[in-house]
Formats: sequence, C-alpha cells, structure tokens
Amino acid sequence: MISKEKKQEVIEKTLEYFKKANIAITDEEKTKIEIADFGLNEIEITGLEILVYVNTDRVCAKELVMLPNQTCPEHRHPSVNNEPGKEETFRCRYGKVYLYVEGEKTKNCKTNPPESPDGSYTVFHEIELNPGEQYTLYPNTKHWFKSGENGAVVSEFSTKSRDESDVFTDKRIIRVEK
Amino acid sequence: MISKEKKQEVIEKTLEYFKKANIAITDEEKTKIEIADFGLNEIEITGLEILVYVNTDRVCAKELVMLPNQTCPEHRHPSVNNEPGKEETFRCRYGKVYLYVEGEKTKNCKTNPPESPDGSYTVFHEIELNPGEQYTLYPNTKHWFKSGENGAVVSEFSTKSRDESDVFTDKRIIRVEK
Repeated sequence: MISKEKKQEVIEKTLEYFKKANIAITDEEKTKIEIADFGLNEIEITGLEILVYVNTDRVCAKELVMLPNQTCPEHRHPSVNNEPGKEETFRCRYGKVYLYVEGEKTKNCKTNPPESPDGSYTVFHEIELNPGEQYTLYPNTKHWFKSGENGAVVSEFSTKSRDESDVFTDKRIIRVEK
Repeated sequence: MISKEKKQEVIEKTLEYFKKANIAITDEEKTKIEIADFGLNEIEITGLEILVYVNTDRVCAKELVMLPNQTCPEHRHPSVNNEPGKEETFRCRYGKVYLYVEGEKTKNCKTNPPESPDGSYTVFHEIELNPGEQYTLYPNTKHWFKSGENGAVVSEFSTKSRDESDVFTDKRIIRVEK
C-alpha cells in the first residue's frame, strides 16, 4: 500500500499538472484527489491520479492526471444490474497519452506496458492522443493507457463510474479496498 | 437569422476564448463550432457558442463559450421517449457565469435578463460560478445563464443532448430550424 508520504508527494505533483494545464480546481477539490496505486505499490510506474467532478446515476466527469510514463493498467467495464457497462470518452488536455484498445495490434508501438505477470496486458491497438484529441470507448472494451514522457492531463466523460465493478486483466490488482 | 459575416466574426471571437482559456481543440473541431442565436438575431445579447465533444445515446460533453454579458435564454429539458430529461453539470473554466434556477429569488441579483416579452424569464435563484466551480441541474429544471463582463468558457457534462426537445420560456425562440 502507498505510504502517507508518497501519497502526499504525488498529490503535490498532481496539483502542478493542473497548473501546467491551466485547469482551475477549488480548494475543496484539492483535498479530494484520489491517488490510485491499484495495490501494486509502484505508483510512478502503475497508477493514476483522479479528480471526480461529478458522478451521478447517469453521468460522470473526471480529470485524470498521469505522471511521466505512468500506466493505468488494462481493464474493462462490464454490465452491472442489467445496465450496459461504462461508456467513456478520453480527451487529452495536456501532454500525450497512448491508449491501447482491442483490435489489430499496432506494429512498433510507441510504448510498452510495465513489467508484470504474463497475460496482464493483452490488447495492443494503439491510439495516440495529443491535446484536443479524443477517443470514445464502448462498454466492456479492454483498454489500458500510458502517458508520454511529460505526463498528461486527460478529461474523462462517461456514464456512471463504478470502480468496484471494473475487471482488471492483472489479477494482482486491487482497485477498491473492500 | 444571423448573417454569414456576423457568424464568422463570432466564430473568430470564440476561438480567441478557447486560447485565453488554454483549451486545445483540433482544426476539425474549429469548423464545427455552433453559433446559436435562438432566432432572435441579437447574438451578442442572447446567444451561445457551442463545441460538442461527444454526444452519444448516453453521454454528452461540450464546451460553451459566452461573449461578455451574453445570455443563454431560459429553458428546460423535459422527458423524451419515457426517459428522464437531460441532466447537466456546468463547470466554469474561464471568466464568470451567473446561473439562474428555480428556487427562492435572490435579492439584488448581479445581472438581469435581456429585454424580452413579459414572462420570458421566470426563475431568479442566482448561482455565481467562477473558474473551478460547478453546479448540477436535474431534469426539467427551468434555467438560464449569463456571463460576466469578460465572457466565460463553461464545460457541460450531461446525458444525451436533444436540442430539438428543449422547451424555451420565450415563445419567440427557435433553437433548431425545422
């Protein structure tokens, strides 16, 4: 589990990214930034910094901050309670992000997944997103993403987020402590 | 109806707001900005500049640009096809916006609606939004909003947008040409 000190360090870095991207957030929001280390205890390598703006039964919007070359590990959003899984659009606001989805494997991918047990990363169709570019993922599509060397800020527009229902390919991962 | 020349002038101003707010948009998006004059032919007074990022059956995200002291007129989003009306969150990114919703009338409102026939504006509960501040409106709530003297850029996160179903209080208004 991530230490208090490390968590605070990553929060400070996250706030710097909001400044660099010229994204205004309130003092209250600064206290609500989530540092997700997915239980792997290697936050700079595998992790994600999240500020949820709104998450109702119908709509969710977040800002995702990524440290340089940080990976959000492969997962999918299955159906829940007979409702189709989460649909999400990623829009790059700052930096660069490489998104990997199901489909034909891209030759000469620009990045690689972090070291992990065999079979933790299975989709390699690469989409590069620069500021102003976006991509919409439909429910239950396997995907993972990794920032470029300067990190990234990415807006996510989606249906309701239910992190506890996400299915990660790497079975070591713990998204939500139960 | 707005002239071609006026429309082009407003598009140029809108692009300047995206720059001032440091919001990156693609060249293709620059050609898709909607200038909504609501059929009133007074765009600087009553109007809205809109860039739709995504609008699927489930999720919509837009950037709204407002010229100085510009008003988006009072309307509500009713149920459509037995689905609850549009739910939307407005998040101020740049400038200042005054949002008016149903509820107790605010004493000494900071702005006034534009000149219009009696009964075109009926809700006066004022919410001031500065950069980083947001407000979530539930379906079928009457609302209108007006920018401050420096204009505004506002992100809207919502369920599906169906502009043709919006109900405006001012009966002169034409939102979508039929």
